[in-house]
Amino acid sequence: MSKEFRAGKTKIKVNGTEIGGAEFVVMAGPCSVESEKQIMQAAEGVAKAGAKMLRGGAFKPRTSPYDFQGMEEEGLKLLKKAKEATGLAIITEVMSDRDVGLVARYADVMQVGARNMQNFMLLKELGKCGRPVLLKRGLSSTVKELLMSAEYVTAHGNADVILCERGIRTFETVTRNTCDIAAIPALNELTHLPVILDPSHATGKRSLVPALCRAGVAIGADGLIVEVHPAPEKAISDGAQSLDLAQFHKMMKELEPYIQLWNESRRVQAAAAAT
Amino acid sequence: MSKEFRAGKTKIKVNGTEIGGAEFVVMAGPCSVESEKQIMQAAEGVAKAGAKMLRGGAFKPRTSPYDFQGMEEEGLKLLKKAKEATGLAIITEVMSDRDVGLVARYADVMQVGARNMQNFMLLKELGKCGRPVLLKRGLSSTVKELLMSAEYVTAHGNADVILCERGIRTFETVTRNTCDIAAIPALNELTHLPVILDPSHATGKRSLVPALCRAGVAIGADGLIVEVHPAPEKAISDGAQSLDLAQFHKMMKELEPYIQLWNESRRVQAAAAAT
Amino acid sequence: MSKEFRAGKTKIKVNGTEIGGAEFVVMAGPCSVESEKQIMQAAEGVAKAGAKMLRGGAFKPRTSPYDFQGMEEEGLKLLKKAKEATGLAIITEVMSDRDVGLVARYADVMQVGARNMQNFMLLKELGKCGRPVLLKRGLSSTVKELLMSAEYVTAHGNADVILCERGIRTFETVTRNTCDIAAIPALNELTHLPVILDPSHATGKRSLVPALCRAGVAIGADGLIVEVHPAPEKAISDGAQSLDLAQFHKMMKELEPYIQLWNESRRVQAAAAAT
Amino acid sequence: MSKEFRAGKTKIKVNGTEIGGAEFVVMAGPCSVESEKQIMQAAEGVAKAGAKMLRGGAFKPRTSPYDFQGMEEEGLKLLKKAKEATGLAIITEVMSDRDVGLVARYADVMQVGARNMQNFMLLKELGKCGRPVLLKRGLSSTVKELLMSAEYVTAHGNADVILCERGIRTFETVTRNTCDIAAIPALNELTHLPVILDPSHATGKRSLVPALCRAGVAIGADGLIVEVHPAPEKAISDGAQSLDLAQFHKMMKELEPYIQLWNESRRVQAAAAAT
Repeated sequence: MSKEFRAGKTKIKVNGTEIGGAEFVVMAGPCSVESEKQIMQAAEGVAKAGAKMLRGGAFKPRTSPYDFQGMEEEGLKLLKKAKEATGLAIITEVMSDRDVGLVARYADVMQVGARNMQNFMLLKELGKCGRPVLLKRGLSSTVKELLMSAEYVTAHGNADVILCERGIRTFETVTRNTCDIAAIPALNELTHLPVILDPSHATGKRSLVPALCRAGVAIGADGLIVEVHPAPEKAISDGAQSLDLAQFHKMMKELEPYIQLWNESRRVQAAAAAT
Repeated sequence: MSKEFRAGKTKIKVNGTEIGGAEFVVMAGPCSVESEKQIMQAAEGVAKAGAKMLRGGAFKPRTSPYDFQGMEEEGLKLLKKAKEATGLAIITEVMSDRDVGLVARYADVMQVGARNMQNFMLLKELGKCGRPVLLKRGLSSTVKELLMSAEYVTAHGNADVILCERGIRTFETVTRNTCDIAAIPALNELTHLPVILDPSHATGKRSLVPALCRAGVAIGADGLIVEVHPAPEKAISDGAQSLDLAQFHKMMKELEPYIQLWNESRRVQAAAAAT
Repeated sequence: MSKEFRAGKTKIKVNGTEIGGAEFVVMAGPCSVESEKQIMQAAEGVAKAGAKMLRGGAFKPRTSPYDFQGMEEEGLKLLKKAKEATGLAIITEVMSDRDVGLVARYADVMQVGARNMQNFMLLKELGKCGRPVLLKRGLSSTVKELLMSAEYVTAHGNADVILCERGIRTFETVTRNTCDIAAIPALNELTHLPVILDPSHATGKRSLVPALCRAGVAIGADGLIVEVHPAPEKAISDGAQSLDLAQFHKMMKELEPYIQLWNESRRVQAAAAAT
Repeated sequence: MSKEFRAGKTKIKVNGTEIGGAEFVVMAGPCSVESEKQIMQAAEGVAKAGAKMLRGGAFKPRTSPYDFQGMEEEGLKLLKKAKEATGLAIITEVMSDRDVGLVARYADVMQVGARNMQNFMLLKELGKCGRPVLLKRGLSSTVKELLMSAEYVTAHGNADVILCERGIRTFETVTRNTCDIAAIPALNELTHLPVILDPSHATGKRSLVPALCRAGVAIGADGLIVEVHPAPEKAISDGAQSLDLAQFHKMMKELEPYIQLWNESRRVQAAAAAT
């Protein structure tokens, strides 16, 4: 997986989009799938604003057993419906090696949450799932451990792993987590795998998300995964860090000149690599 | 699970021993089951020194996929053999909800490793396993999250949960982890569940283990889980933090007066509770 | 100091430049002043590339007493000479309340290092020094503690405080510190004081500095403070994180389109504030 | 300062007591000197319970400039008075190199607070002060950095340095800081300097102090520094972590059997060293 083994970046095709290549990919959607109306509104809204993939959890890893645990297969079916309506690819979380087959029937990309980054049984199973995997960095995992966990997936047969910086746990409480943004260029030196940024979990605070997205584009991430909800104040989970559809639309507009600079920079890199 | 719901401490019976009660319980053994000879020597040695339970991993959560992943069911069978020979109860790790039934056929106590403390699918399944569960604190988990994870097990039907402080991840590198020893009395204020200390992972360094064990007894832990290997220099994993049999024997001797003070203190508490 | 007390951002004039206003300000130079030749080369190089202020330490806070402790007043005199030759303003560190008067005779901006962020005697003295103060965030200081430390300076009479994010201490070791970049927009919500980014200490690694500088501009910092040395491989301190003059020049070129976007964004903000 | 340079532990004589030797030394008293009545009551109470040194701050490092900053020289005079009345030695904090001479006129031991552990100007000055120095570990300082800071004092002429573990800053919030208790035996392997434990700052919570003191004795610290206030509910600072006089008296009683074990262990060590 290290750069010495393979020249060039891993480009991962998902539903007509290419992650790790010449396109900056935005994934967006709610924390949890909550109802047909909610997920359809979210999907249509984020598609219109320019997102290429729809995120939304059907299996939810919650700290407390008394919190909403997700709609499970019902939620997966709603995601599929949203895909049919909008053309968006689906990214959703899988929490157990036992559910890999089920989730793979609905998802375009299999998400591993931060709390499962070292759930090695799950990682091994994902090596055989036939779908790209988005691997979120654990709350207190080092960059090297993140790469080792990716290696579990690739060593078991699946080369299509997308890494995701989503903030680490530190003493600071003004944000929910601490976004280790320098991990992105550090990973780009260590691996050819695509790296994206999750500004929603990294900050836990809606108002900080647009600024962090700009930083993510500028630093050279391959994409973003952003929490967006049609009515954040009613969200069952993560409402405080979710943008509403108008906020997301405005942010995407403001990102455009930064994405143009990103595109130019990729063209220069590609030209340099070709010679 | 909080103290308001139930008076008195949870006492958990395991193979004739009671954890959380009037007895200070020592669990000891190697990181991994490596061979019949190794596990039998370890079991006999720790039993002779006064341990009541044998630890040893058959399923190993390793950072790298290229490291030894454990002997799996073969290892579980060897643990059973060691139990038959010595009378020690068996504590061993389970890494996936899929393996809960298998491990429960061999283990007296089901161990959840630090990396799986928030593997909620596993915790739910352990709620139905019919065996006590030892729940290790995650590397960057708070005391409250540890209690919430215990709640997953109890809410799914299993009240017999033992908590384990094993060091958290900080900036300090002179030890492998940072032993948050004050979490033990803090937990004693928040929950009636037994709490034990793992000085081996907390320090990562054999020479610091005896001193930390003394502190663990003095601070009021209900027991210890210590890595002991017949030949630490040949151990496949965690050799640097494992005591050899002679060192463990010497340490158990030196702990005796501290355990006597512990016994007296429990008698006083029991008498106070009875009135 | 909070936004409720005063409308608009604090604009700090230094030697004809304005920090916190309509200009993105770059400060650059070596970690330590080492010799006349070194500081003159550095000053001329960074001035040519577009920096407005020269950094360089004459008093050096070093972990070990056996490391180079700085040229002291001799170094301050060399900084003054560099200022006369290039027109650059001087920013340099003061380590004791006893030295405030001395350093203030040479410096345009008084720097407080991360290790002294809660040296309250020093902060009080700087309240009376008549010079702007650059306050670096402590290695394990929260955003709120940083603001409280700034409050020490302002409460003692000096409103001109520039805050600086320079990375915090975490468990991650792939970078020297962990750049808490989201602290910048978080500070912008909490205070009107200017906030700049130090990408050199935040990463400890030369190759990561340009990417982090782009992120700093994009996220809305008011400036950068970058370590640049004419011969980093010969630097007495912090060589691994210093750019050479050619690298700095190239980076400044590449930052231009990002700084243009920054300028436009400030114009929009200023226009919005004026109505 | 390392063990290779000198055989045996550094024994520091203070007012007839020896720290680092055959006696377990308890220092106790309020966070701040607040009034004559308060400090005299505290002094008499802790002396009666068996403390050998009185702690109490006259210069207070407070996060906010609007909090009580200490009684300064007035406070030092009250400490002296308390010493004359009780025979207790005085330990009090010095915050600036400028105040070293003043504080040394009143104090038996000069305390460096956690926030000043890397105030190198202060450390250098303390090298020449003619008094033992108690050096508290910084909130995010490693064990090695603590030793390097001690080295500043010793390299400038003062070999009498006592190290103090007082908890480090982590993500955990159930306690004020995280007591890194394993740092005590780790330091005992690395240095001959005495090491004591501050359970009050380590936990921030009165109810956890007695248990942590037991652990400190058992793990082999050379002493304790405990916050005790005649009326904690009225304390200007740190009330929540201060014991009242009755609680301190009870705790000292309960520590006795642990201190007896400590004494025996030192005798064994001394005998072993003598042969």
